[in-house]
Amino acid sequence: MSQPIVVNQDILEMEYAVRGPIPQRAAALRKEGRAIIPCHIGNPQALGQDPIAFYRQVLSLIEEPGRIARERRLNRLAGTAAPAPDDRVSDEVLDRAETVLEQLGTGLGAYTESRGLMFVREAIARYIDRRDGSGSPVAAPADPENIFLTNGASDGARLVLEALIADRRDGIMIPIPQYPLYSATIRRYGGTQVNYYPDEESGWSLTTPMLEEAMRGAQSEGVRVKGIVVINPANPTGAVLDEASVEGVICFAERHGLVIIADEVYQENLYGERFVSFARALGRRVVPLVSLHSTSKGFYGECGHRGGYLELRNPPPVHGEGGSLCDVLLKQASVSLCANTVGQVLTYLVVSPPEPECAPYERYVQQRQRILADLHDKATMARRAFERMDGVRCFGKIGAMYLFPRLETLPGGTTDFDYCMGLLEQTGFCTVNGGGFGQRPGTSHLRMAFLPPKAVLEEALPRWIDFHARYVKRR
Amino acid sequence: MSQPIVVNQDILEMEYAVRGPIPQRAAALRKEGRAIIPCHIGNPQALGQDPIAFYRQVLSLIEEPGRIARERRLNRLAGTAAPAPDDRVSDEVLDRAETVLEQLGTGLGAYTESRGLMFVREAIARYIDRRDGSGSPVAAPADPENIFLTNGASDGARLVLEALIADRRDGIMIPIPQYPLYSATIRRYGGTQVNYYPDEESGWSLTTPMLEEAMRGAQSEGVRVKGIVVINPANPTGAVLDEASVEGVICFAERHGLVIIADEVYQENLYGERFVSFARALGRRVVPLVSLHSTSKGFYGECGHRGGYLELRNPPPVHGEGGSLCDVLLKQASVSLCANTVGQVLTYLVVSPPEPECAPYERYVQQRQRILADLHDKATMARRAFERMDGVRCFGKIGAMYLFPRLETLPGGTTDFDYCMGLLEQTGFCTVNGGGFGQRPGTSHLRMAFLPPKAVLEEALPRWIDFHARYVKRR
Repeated sequence: MSQPIVVNQDILEMEYAVRGPIPQRAAALRKEGRAIIPCHIGNPQALGQDPIAFYRQVLSLIEEPGRIARERRLNRLAGTAAPAPDDRVSDEVLDRAETVLEQLGTGLGAYTESRGLMFVREAIARYIDRRDGSGSPVAAPADPENIFLTNGASDGARLVLEALIADRRDGIMIPIPQYPLYSATIRRYGGTQVNYYPDEESGWSLTTPMLEEAMRGAQSEGVRVKGIVVINPANPTGAVLDEASVEGVICFAERHGLVIIADEVYQENLYGERFVSFARALGRRVVPLVSLHSTSKGFYGECGHRGGYLELRNPPPVHGEGGSLCDVLLKQASVSLCANTVGQVLTYLVVSPPEPECAPYERYVQQRQRILADLHDKATMARRAFERMDGVRCFGKIGAMYLFPRLETLPGGTTDFDYCMGLLEQTGFCTVNGGGFGQRPGTSHLRMAFLPPKAVLEEALPRWIDFHARYVKRR
Repeated sequence: MSQPIVVNQDILEMEYAVRGPIPQRAAALRKEGRAIIPCHIGNPQALGQDPIAFYRQVLSLIEEPGRIARERRLNRLAGTAAPAPDDRVSDEVLDRAETVLEQLGTGLGAYTESRGLMFVREAIARYIDRRDGSGSPVAAPADPENIFLTNGASDGARLVLEALIADRRDGIMIPIPQYPLYSATIRRYGGTQVNYYPDEESGWSLTTPMLEEAMRGAQSEGVRVKGIVVINPANPTGAVLDEASVEGVICFAERHGLVIIADEVYQENLYGERFVSFARALGRRVVPLVSLHSTSKGFYGECGHRGGYLELRNPPPVHGEGGSLCDVLLKQASVSLCANTVGQVLTYLVVSPPEPECAPYERYVQQRQRILADLHDKATMARRAFERMDGVRCFGKIGAMYLFPRLETLPGGTTDFDYCMGLLEQTGFCTVNGGGFGQRPGTSHLRMAFLPPKAVLEEALPRWIDFHARYVKRR
């Protein structure tokens, strides 16, 4: 055995429940042959969701550019035996792949600029402007120079938090509950986590008093708050913020000179609600904003491709330097060379879907609608099941991919961790306990990702209801 | 304008010359329409090197799995008009894609285990064992549990350095010159860079006295040295370490309880020399070793796909904890969820090339041989040009993708930075000055990546010779 070494204490102390003991136990049970219902992570394609065909067709062609001419030759053979009509790749897909290759210049195998490919960043800026109605007097247009392509959104969150945390007394406000990427990354870079508590019973809404209270608490302990993280639609609660909540955060950040870190990766996971982006609500106010997006979520759920971007608005100047926060992020990004090119191109496709009236459009829209409707149905099934469980209450509109029910009647001496572990052992449902995300002291929750196929949920939810009835009776 | 913010000082202070002022000036000149000869970065496909067809065929198929059955149908139509024989995808390629998909289980769109896909890690372990003749009494077999798939090798280096650096007095030994990823990352995580100086005139070899000297210097300043970085074949010098140098590092690390960080990303960029891996030289000695590899280099040069791995041997236990360095790396990796799946599969293909006697083999071998022969020719052309320049000397065998000539006759008051900037402005050659990698005080160098096409070099090298003659005459 080699000699023991001392490692970075901040890494030892950080926690990341989404890949913690419950999922690890589930993996062990699966190895033993047990059927597991994975509701612990937002990983839809692992649960049978099909990829959006249009994206994959284009990616497949640009991996092997010679195929474009070949497919065109095959298409010209229409009427002969091969290929069958269903086997043909439409001209629009071939054209799109050709356009991407022209823009790529040297294909997928070359490093790109540190910020990412310019044509992708330009397409992202157009997407944001379309989404927010920018150019109107309300919203400022997005600037491709302030957009960074990243390996998933986690990478973007890491870059920003690493830049902002200069000292142990530097604080970052995060909602409780939160996605543990944030608590882990703040811990890892040696900063101070400053909790604020969205109001569960009013659908996890945010109010100025709750933000000010958190700020006062931090200041009284000598913490300099530098940024505020907001996740909307929220992970783990699935809540969708209303305009007043978003506006309140912006005014609060303006008053205290904070950078807003808006995790907006679930912006397309809406089921009837309206998404209010921070960029749109910001309008022309000069408040620093970082918005994160990802190809892993939405209706596409391309987790494995690790695509994503970070958009920066109003980058603040850096104290004692010529540059701005944008220059600092660029320097950080340059050491990693660039985000993976396939993820970059996928991000481009996500923000530039097929045009209406072209051949791939119809299937694209059908897939999108079916996936979103399916997710909504599954969330509704789960919520109905919770209604049949004693003391289980689920607040807020449905958004993102998660439900975060409150467990009000756990037997004395048991925790939500015990509950989730029992649920896993007895029913196969793999969830993550509320403690893994943080929760108001004295409350118990769990997060359920509503992704398993409907048939699986239909069959398994009654078992959860039975488990629950037995569990709470232990009181 | 928003208020200035204080950012992480370690990021402000880190430097990364490979994407620094000279390449930035080159990009500006190119925008003005100037022809640039990019020799500043190892990015072969940006300079016209073709991807290895076999890799791309497989990747293309697994992006769009439905295509496999379609290609089989098309192949059965042999003899009819379509597809032409050259357009057919061979059965071996289709079989390989099918095998990969089976192993992937849920395709490219799902997150993988934090360490990466098990079948890829198993294939890497087999590759290492084949390379090193493991299982023999000499070398210990590689363990898939100690392998981590990463987004390029940079990611792996970052994980390890971040874990090892617990304190400002923690030192990491790096060769001078070095690839600035290391100096930048040590700076970024607040550690202390401890320089050692390979002997330029003996082909950049390493000796125990030079390592001990660096150690004594560090210890006398209260620095606790925890690891030693070795880059072999070397970046930026292109030198290939002999067995004695590798052995010397292992004994040194064993004596001082260091973790060896072996950057072996150029292990396939050899032109007649023999690569001695640290794992092989280590044999059964219990010295902690991290070896980094990447899909970006070698003859494949798939930089954009950001594939890579980190192999850990003899992970040391962590002080005060139950676990080992492997557990710490796993925790870090889990927060980023996983490396991109396309890069993971590409890594699998790199370590599991086509079998001899199958259809794709011949083309694969031809491509490999042509690329490596071409690189060697280009290195030889550049070295010959240097021989015609007054006071330019290039030491060491040819390896990796770089030459690192010493400039002995720069006019007084000028630096290698001035020289490289002048070279860029007057000839279009974009190189990086030795100062960007570190060099023995009082010496001047530049790094040239020998990647541009032969015809370009043939035409342009005489202009460099002329530039040099004029430049040194300014003395």
